Amino acid sequence: MTKQELFNQITQKSSYLCVGLDTDLNRIPKHLLKAEDPLFEFNKQIIDATIDYAVAYKPNIAFYEAHGVKGWESLQKTIEYIPKEAFTIADAKRGDIGNTSNMYARAFFDAMNFDSITVAPYMGEDSVKPFLEFDNKWVILLALTSNAGGKDFQNLSLEKGGELYEEVLSKSQEWGSDEELMYVVGATRAEALQNIRKIVPDHFLLVPGVGAQGGSLEEVSKYGMNKHCGLLVNSSRGIIYADDSVDFAKTAGVKAQELQTEMEGFLAKFL
Amino acid sequence: MTKQELFNQITQKSSYLCVGLDTDLNRIPKHLLKAEDPLFEFNKQIIDATIDYAVAYKPNIAFYEAHGVKGWESLQKTIEYIPKEAFTIADAKRGDIGNTSNMYARAFFDAMNFDSITVAPYMGEDSVKPFLEFDNKWVILLALTSNAGGKDFQNLSLEKGGELYEEVLSKSQEWGSDEELMYVVGATRAEALQNIRKIVPDHFLLVPGVGAQGGSLEEVSKYGMNKHCGLLVNSSRGIIYADDSVDFAKTAGVKAQELQTEMEGFLAKFL
Repeated sequence: MTKQELFNQITQKSSYLCVGLDTDLNRIPKHLLKAEDPLFEFNKQIIDATIDYAVAYKPNIAFYEAHGVKGWESLQKTIEYIPKEAFTIADAKRGDIGNTSNMYARAFFDAMNFDSITVAPYMGEDSVKPFLEFDNKWVILLALTSNAGGKDFQNLSLEKGGELYEEVLSKSQEWGSDEELMYVVGATRAEALQNIRKIVPDHFLLVPGVGAQGGSLEEVSKYGMNKHCGLLVNSSRGIIYADDSVDFAKTAGVKAQELQTEMEGFLAKFL
Repeated sequence: MTKQELFNQITQKSSYLCVGLDTDLNRIPKHLLKAEDPLFEFNKQIIDATIDYAVAYKPNIAFYEAHGVKGWESLQKTIEYIPKEAFTIADAKRGDIGNTSNMYARAFFDAMNFDSITVAPYMGEDSVKPFLEFDNKWVILLALTSNAGGKDFQNLSLEKGGELYEEVLSKSQEWGSDEELMYVVGATRAEALQNIRKIVPDHFLLVPGVGAQGGSLEEVSKYGMNKHCGLLVNSSRGIIYADDSVDFAKTAGVKAQELQTEMEGFLAKFL
């Protein structure tokens, strides 16, 4: 998917919502456990209920891998089920050297038809570039994450000035353009967004951590939005686990619509 | 596996060789492509031929994931086939927050019975700790990698002194002991090993990059060895792809034995 196609979808749906598919057998409604493939059955109903309000879906790969071969099958069915209009993110946080990255790229871009994959920056340029060689596919590079441990290394001050995450943002722009590279920026540090926008004014940012992890959607939108919106804001648990009854999908739709309505307002105000 | 059990095996075999199972359909001998499961058939013969000379096996997870469900099955069969005496490493370079790391840990430690997994440090403490909660299982944390891009971030000088990889070594010692935590240290920078041993004198180091990637086994052994050996030196392509004829496994055994013989000498000299 191109940047323009993504922006078109954002405009059409008045939404920059990404639904995180952190699908966990221990948390999905009990009645689904009788289904032949409970993970997929859950995802299918969530997708049907939220597709009018969401522009992206982000399966958290760990949750499928944890079930081995069966989980991999559920993931494959899920990615095939997501309507083509939606931007798909393999939240895999991969990162390895050349030929290994190329293998991961083939796994997620060819064997499964994901639009993008999250990648960790620690191993540098040759761990990221193999993913950038695929046309109309995206790397979403970890920059500033919202977890407590994020500060352990990401916020270290460098001798030459700035913090590590700022160097990740600067350096990685040498590897790919804003037509193929996005960044993960944790929403609980919305104050850092102004600074981040100085370094990467045109890139899309994937913002997890609104909702359960505590970020403010208004702050993120105010400081993070650019002229192509430039934001994908993820919500996982706040949508998919809002209700564990047989009505879970309906409730997920309501929660997604609530966020979409807020986003519609922020698009009118800040775009 | 405990540290003592690993050391016992090193002593018994006079070897600290790890065989990397970067098994690629495009590189394995052509006659194996007719097998029902070529990846597993290749691994099985490699393991049989090298088990007397190697103390560890390291499947590179990307190479299996690239084949989706089928690859996952080949990986599962491989880990079940490796004799219990050998230390097994899931070279997955995972790293995500709390509940997601826990899912990955379950995938590799429970669903498959790996002894260890490689983990990327960028997300900090809460991305590493969930792996440390499993008894007798190990985290192998990326510290200094041997690829060209490794220097992009790992060698950045910090304002407070030292380079990023040194901070990763120091900080992570707060999270786990040398009975559960190892480090990846690229062998092409053997001169850095002296410095690394000042920071982590007792930990095991996993050293990739001897052979095809150009590191010197003697230098690594001289500067990296401690009183429990403290080294696992990996060779992948130099062993498993030394020969693409029907005799590939026999040749792999010869190559592994050559390295084991060198290691026997270095154990006598430096231990």
